[in-house]
Amino acid sequence: MSTFAGLWRSLLAIGRDPVTGGYRRLCWSPAELDCRAWFETAAAQRNLRAETDRNGNLWAWWEPPGTQSGIPAVVTGSHLDSVPDGGAFDGPLGVVSAFAAIDELRRGGFVPARPIAVAAFAEEEGGRFGVACLGSRLLTGAIDPDTARSLTDGDGVTFGAAMQAAGHDPAALGRDDDLIARLGTYLELHIEQGRGLADLDAAVAVADGIWPHGRWRLDFTGRADHAGTAVLADRHDPMIPYAATVLAARQAAIEHGTLATLGKVVARPGAANAVCSSVTAWLDARAPDGVGLEETTDQILAAAEQEAGAHQVELACRQESFTPAVDFDAALRDRLVGSLLAAGIGAPVLLTGAGHDAGILAARLPTGMLFVRNPTGVSHSPAEHADAADCATGVAALAAALQDLAS
Amino acid sequence: MSTFAGLWRSLLAIGRDPVTGGYRRLCWSPAELDCRAWFETAAAQRNLRAETDRNGNLWAWWEPPGTQSGIPAVVTGSHLDSVPDGGAFDGPLGVVSAFAAIDELRRGGFVPARPIAVAAFAEEEGGRFGVACLGSRLLTGAIDPDTARSLTDGDGVTFGAAMQAAGHDPAALGRDDDLIARLGTYLELHIEQGRGLADLDAAVAVADGIWPHGRWRLDFTGRADHAGTAVLADRHDPMIPYAATVLAARQAAIEHGTLATLGKVVARPGAANAVCSSVTAWLDARAPDGVGLEETTDQILAAAEQEAGAHQVELACRQESFTPAVDFDAALRDRLVGSLLAAGIGAPVLLTGAGHDAGILAARLPTGMLFVRNPTGVSHSPAEHADAADCATGVAALAAALQDLAS
Repeated sequence: MSTFAGLWRSLLAIGRDPVTGGYRRLCWSPAELDCRAWFETAAAQRNLRAETDRNGNLWAWWEPPGTQSGIPAVVTGSHLDSVPDGGAFDGPLGVVSAFAAIDELRRGGFVPARPIAVAAFAEEEGGRFGVACLGSRLLTGAIDPDTARSLTDGDGVTFGAAMQAAGHDPAALGRDDDLIARLGTYLELHIEQGRGLADLDAAVAVADGIWPHGRWRLDFTGRADHAGTAVLADRHDPMIPYAATVLAARQAAIEHGTLATLGKVVARPGAANAVCSSVTAWLDARAPDGVGLEETTDQILAAAEQEAGAHQVELACRQESFTPAVDFDAALRDRLVGSLLAAGIGAPVLLTGAGHDAGILAARLPTGMLFVRNPTGVSHSPAEHADAADCATGVAALAAALQDLAS
Repeated sequence: MSTFAGLWRSLLAIGRDPVTGGYRRLCWSPAELDCRAWFETAAAQRNLRAETDRNGNLWAWWEPPGTQSGIPAVVTGSHLDSVPDGGAFDGPLGVVSAFAAIDELRRGGFVPARPIAVAAFAEEEGGRFGVACLGSRLLTGAIDPDTARSLTDGDGVTFGAAMQAAGHDPAALGRDDDLIARLGTYLELHIEQGRGLADLDAAVAVADGIWPHGRWRLDFTGRADHAGTAVLADRHDPMIPYAATVLAARQAAIEHGTLATLGKVVARPGAANAVCSSVTAWLDARAPDGVGLEETTDQILAAAEQEAGAHQVELACRQESFTPAVDFDAALRDRLVGSLLAAGIGAPVLLTGAGHDAGILAARLPTGMLFVRNPTGVSHSPAEHADAADCATGVAALAAALQDLAS
């Protein structure tokens, strides 16, 4: 556990908001570049060969002389970027645990029969450029590189320009089959983002799959007007159908046993004494299955359309991202449960509503995930937390799994 | 009309958004400083003595040799700042018309028996620092100078710091009785911000009074969480009670025949895949009388409290500004109607829901207002408009009124 604690501490101050205690490690920002430097230092300290791939993802390769270069690697890792004001664990726990697990394996004298790599994927949260798992989507060809290059942040800076400013060539973005051919298995450890493990009284779980989920952008366009003089009947106030949509989303999620969230809204021009001219909002919806997701979003978007029409407001809806249900590799899942049990760690199998790079990579290679208990279930928040003992169990579980997979 | 058209044109490009055509002349911003320079040029061209008072308000004095310095002035004017993405007329029409009316009086050979001044008050919209009519409130002592100095804009810049950066001393802010003693009457010409004149088929109206109105800040504080994993029952989502408050505000305004608007909202941290931690919103409420206003806001704030409680969200409400009903000076109002009629301009008498510096100054001296027809009633919007012929009638009405008052 000592190498985990040291690594964890060395990352903890980077990008932390002194007021909220939350993290702003947005892709290619100074804080995130510091995280990248931290990754390279951690690799160098362990004599792992570090590289940044064409899509801005970080890799640290353990290639003992005995490993054959043609054999695909066992890869573990996660991501270092955060949502705005996110927690310390979402992402970094998997990267720190990966390095700590390698330390643990080496302390035990283990020599892998195949390469082991630590990965940290770029822009997993979509916190800056709006598309989650951007690095793994680019790597696997799930997003067109032209589309990725032209994604913009809130200030209008493109992903391509930000990448270039950080010293990487955006012209090289895109599907990388040579690299994928070197990857045999991807195993991502992540803090749980719900209370499944807390309710089951277990420290670590093996993932079964990921709910299908998507993001929709809703642009309500009305007409700016004076708040003190425009009579109600004359108004085209986009805030009213927006508000009705928020309540419709909650209602639809209750009715269908799904999740629907509006956490980002921009009202323009945003004057306290004016009816706003437009409201742009983002709907995040997730469900245990595709039918539930479609029923949920159909109901919400129909309510949005109806309320917009009733208030003489234009509505444009656009799906910004969609990830179908992911079933992690069943053989790998069962093997993970077995190798953990052999190490004395009983791990239940859980579904999750959160998207992960492992879900994207699952389209190209066998992938699996381990979750570490989150006592409150709170995530994407400064209040996100995992106990030190559970983190240690996570490292032990990961080490056991890597040893099994790389033997 | 020719001097009006030239003056109007010379102001038109300053602070105009090339995309929306709306104006961003926020107090002490580069665009607003350009407007101040425009004011000084217009004064100099007319041999009017320009000065900026201790509170950042602009004055241009016409003091013919015949006028006794001890006699209080007839003041006319309005403001040059705008709401974000506001229209061209709200404010500037009164200032341009004031200069044009002086030109018209001079062309007719009129020599006033008392000083005439053109005024442009600072931060009338509260568009940058959040308190409307800030310049006239400071001048009359309606706001404490310490409070005013520490008001912040969206970037955390204080009013004091912005004023200092523009070359004015914020230490001198505050009630200015010497200046007020020099003001005998204030007459503000303004574009109408409703359809009263359009419905009455008249070009110009005389104001009767201003509805009582106020602004409340609502801080809904919940808990950030992951949109894909936090189950609905565990959420403390501040967006839900915010949305319910928007709908409650519309409902309360319908029931009480009043106005209630939420046009500005900030959700933090504002990630599309996270339940937000807080939502801050501003409620603008106005009513024909104080009872209606209180009933409206009580109903809205009670709904906000109840919905916040139901969703385990904290709510803090704070009144940011309040302006009681203003009845403009009745003798002045009747005199204005008479002097306009003598000039061949039949002007109905109207109430308005919009706040104005004239309403603030009414506490210290006789004030009145003239409104110019707005065919659509739209204001605080790039679509705000007044026809050239109506603007000319406004100048003629203002000239007639000034001639009567300053004889």
